[in-house]
Amino acid sequence: MSTAAPVTYPTAAIDKMMAAIQFDDRGLVAAIAQQHGTGEVLMMAWMDRHAVEETMRTGRVCYWSRSRRAPWRKGETSGHIQRLVDLRVDCDGDTLLVEVEQTGVACHTGRHNCFFRAIRNGELEVIAPVEVDMTTAEKE
Amino acid sequence: MSTAAPVTYPTAAIDKMMAAIQFDDRGLVAAIAQQHGTGEVLMMAWMDRHAVEETMRTGRVCYWSRSRRAPWRKGETSGHIQRLVDLRVDCDGDTLLVEVEQTGVACHTGRHNCFFRAIRNGELEVIAPVEVDMTTAEKE
Repeated sequence: MSTAAPVTYPTAAIDKMMAAIQFDDRGLVAAIAQQHGTGEVLMMAWMDRHAVEETMRTGRVCYWSRSRRAPWRKGETSGHIQRLVDLRVDCDGDTLLVEVEQTGVACHTGRHNCFFRAIRNGELEVIAPVEVDMTTAEKE
Repeated sequence: MSTAAPVTYPTAAIDKMMAAIQFDDRGLVAAIAQQHGTGEVLMMAWMDRHAVEETMRTGRVCYWSRSRRAPWRKGETSGHIQRLVDLRVDCDGDTLLVEVEQTGVACHTGRHNCFFRAIRNGELEVIAPVEVDMTTAEKE
């Protein structure tokens, strides 16, 4: 695990990114978290304007929890934080690709990423092990 | 570019995947397309039930176009198809990770993926070249 400082952005750059984002009618933009270096897709969640701003300003990834209707500072309770490495916006501005350095695991189930179910031999199977016992489960 | 046959699934397996998906109130599920082998995140789009079914049955990735309100058979006009390699569903069932073999480019701008804008030196810059002149532009 790298201990490099997170990438942060000045206000002017945050404003430029914000201007490129097309927030939906809920005020949200989709955010895909991808592990820096390996390319592993960790999770998909949502950000509102404040979450994008906080993520870029602090370098610690913050989402918007649709279920709790509150900022979701990833790892705040579990310690499994995501440090920002790069932030990209797609062609139509409605999806962000958030390159991160994941501490621990991304999924509230204790698996490294959330995409751990796939069809194998005709059955929907769990294809990734639980790596961490998430007693303080953190779920969107 | 591999010429391997696409992965397809029998009806029983499609039904099992479908049962794990939580379609939203629009009847859609988010779908992240990732290039097999490299891990490059190509694009994010949406699928309805029929698009998931068609994708799994044919091995050719099909989305739902929200703007056209119609099935979006990726590459139908441009030839830049996506062959299915694997399909994963996330912990809460509202996002799919679609592992694909991309023919040509994924983005309607002619870039290999849609995430080609990022902050560099304080400016929002285009960080990937146009690889293909998309005269028959294909956009969601």
